[in-house]
Amino acid sequence: MGTLEKTLKNIGMTDSKAIKAAGRKLDSLTKPKGSLGVLEDIVLKLAGIKGFPLTDFRDKVVVIMAGDHGVVEEGVSAFPQEVTPQMILNFINGGAAVSVFARHVGARIVCVDVGVASDMDHPKVINKKVMRGTRNMTKGPAMTRQEAIRALEVGIEMANTEIDKGADLLGTGEMGIGNTTPSSAILAVYSNKPLEQLVGKGTGLNDKGLSLKINAIKKAIELNNPDPNDPVGVLSKVGGLEIGAIAGLILGAAARRVPVVVDGFISTAGALIASKIEPRVCDYIIASHSSEEPGHKIMLELIGLEPMLYTRMRLGEGTGAALAFSIVEASVKMINEMASFDEAGVSKGTENN
Amino acid sequence: MGTLEKTLKNIGMTDSKAIKAAGRKLDSLTKPKGSLGVLEDIVLKLAGIKGFPLTDFRDKVVVIMAGDHGVVEEGVSAFPQEVTPQMILNFINGGAAVSVFARHVGARIVCVDVGVASDMDHPKVINKKVMRGTRNMTKGPAMTRQEAIRALEVGIEMANTEIDKGADLLGTGEMGIGNTTPSSAILAVYSNKPLEQLVGKGTGLNDKGLSLKINAIKKAIELNNPDPNDPVGVLSKVGGLEIGAIAGLILGAAARRVPVVVDGFISTAGALIASKIEPRVCDYIIASHSSEEPGHKIMLELIGLEPMLYTRMRLGEGTGAALAFSIVEASVKMINEMASFDEAGVSKGTENN
Repeated sequence: MGTLEKTLKNIGMTDSKAIKAAGRKLDSLTKPKGSLGVLEDIVLKLAGIKGFPLTDFRDKVVVIMAGDHGVVEEGVSAFPQEVTPQMILNFINGGAAVSVFARHVGARIVCVDVGVASDMDHPKVINKKVMRGTRNMTKGPAMTRQEAIRALEVGIEMANTEIDKGADLLGTGEMGIGNTTPSSAILAVYSNKPLEQLVGKGTGLNDKGLSLKINAIKKAIELNNPDPNDPVGVLSKVGGLEIGAIAGLILGAAARRVPVVVDGFISTAGALIASKIEPRVCDYIIASHSSEEPGHKIMLELIGLEPMLYTRMRLGEGTGAALAFSIVEASVKMINEMASFDEAGVSKGTENN
Repeated sequence: MGTLEKTLKNIGMTDSKAIKAAGRKLDSLTKPKGSLGVLEDIVLKLAGIKGFPLTDFRDKVVVIMAGDHGVVEEGVSAFPQEVTPQMILNFINGGAAVSVFARHVGARIVCVDVGVASDMDHPKVINKKVMRGTRNMTKGPAMTRQEAIRALEVGIEMANTEIDKGADLLGTGEMGIGNTTPSSAILAVYSNKPLEQLVGKGTGLNDKGLSLKINAIKKAIELNNPDPNDPVGVLSKVGGLEIGAIAGLILGAAARRVPVVVDGFISTAGALIASKIEPRVCDYIIASHSSEEPGHKIMLELIGLEPMLYTRMRLGEGTGAALAFSIVEASVKMINEMASFDEAGVSKGTENN
């Protein structure tokens, strides 16, 4: 049995007893029932994943998957491909937005080369290169099925490595010039809406670039004819290496019962693939922000996730996941540190009786 | 000249040169232009308030204003009035949600008795009691004009005290059983929408309670006939002591050029009053979350503010402001710590040239 199959076998149900126990504790705390909204939902989700009581997080990690895309030949990005490795070095040197936000919330970042087109010889970049960028999906499948499975396995391996090191909260991040194009293509396979509603300007296309991007996606889907019932096939035909690795990271984390905070549009495309491979993973995912990319909201709805940050970001990298770590941590501290009505001597309201 | 007039005279324009300098720096950083959305807007706002370059925050404070409401006689709250002082002690003892979230983001909390109905003899509660709760606004004005002005002055005094101590980022918080009722009444004065769209279930009313609340607001507005062009009059007729103190805190902070993060529905009612007294204060306010209270969104739009957290919270206290502190801090670190394209050796995109 391969790594992927073994991992899928280990993704279990969440712990309904722990969820109930957490719910009872939440309702005893000095606040109207349910009044902390999403933060209470996060606590219930975490209890289902990790059991109850919960402990504070000790090692938060944003795992950044990097890969390049053959489809950039079609003029679908405002940035040249050389930016992928340049930005990875910027992440590692601490100068990128995700570096700053991860430091701010006390998280580590880990950078993984899943498929950067050029060589990435740097001691701090984890070399898991499957291939030198995907092929141009307007001319054939982006990857073979074996390459797509290998990308998924890279994600699973990274989840295991980081969890073995102590990680108890993972965040997804990515870098790959052109990667809103495969992400939109994946969304198009799973959504009935017209492409024009699903495809956005990424990090900064003009109208001409947007039209090139829509055409490229249309062509890739027509040519490769991905089957929605075969998510690994979808990934291989119109996906990306870093998108596969993100899906794998989520599957691997779920198998180890570690929660994953999902970043923006590209990360959510990875989550969509993971949820189509094994629907149970949805219970292990926490959404972070709603990005400016128009398809992101639709994608989150397809998975059944609700974002908490509306900050109009469209940068990716893991920036939204890092910022959301602060809210996820606050949720755990809330249930662990708040006083109950009895402890604090506070009278209950009619709805708390 | 009284404290209020003096304060209003000191509320100046924001620094357009600093805003431009911050904008140039933002556009030089390794990210597509504008791709950090709200976080870039926050940086520009802070530059306008504090000048540029910005320094990291050193002393973040949530100021919690507490007051009671005569209108609770009409059955407008799910909780008894004794909860107001009980919760204040819970804040101070560290067991309330706002206590936990403030600790989480490294902020102090300060509790001010502006008008709790009972005695609040506690060394850590700042005694600025204007009166023992407002009067029942369905039977006459909630306060006299002098009492409303005094509530505003309490807020100004608290801004000055905390800023003198070193506070460089303020957050608003409040406690007062029944206080979504005056907040909704204030909104009704400034919005053309029917009451049914503006009034919500607060911390946990049932349908009967909601109908009592709507009737009480209708009655109070008919009887007192507040003039929208006289915001101090609106505050005195259908407002609350803690709402006035929040408005004063915002005016006082703006006069000292210190940014204020506004919490939920009640805090935003205070911000609305402040913005009607002096429209320039809008440039000194950062919105935090969009609450479950249906009128909150409308109120934020009236002031021209955009919330960043959508967490379905409806607790008040300053919980949303405290959580948002983390994002505001991340924004400042972003402009201070991110590398530029030149520094990081990253190629620019077509839209960054």
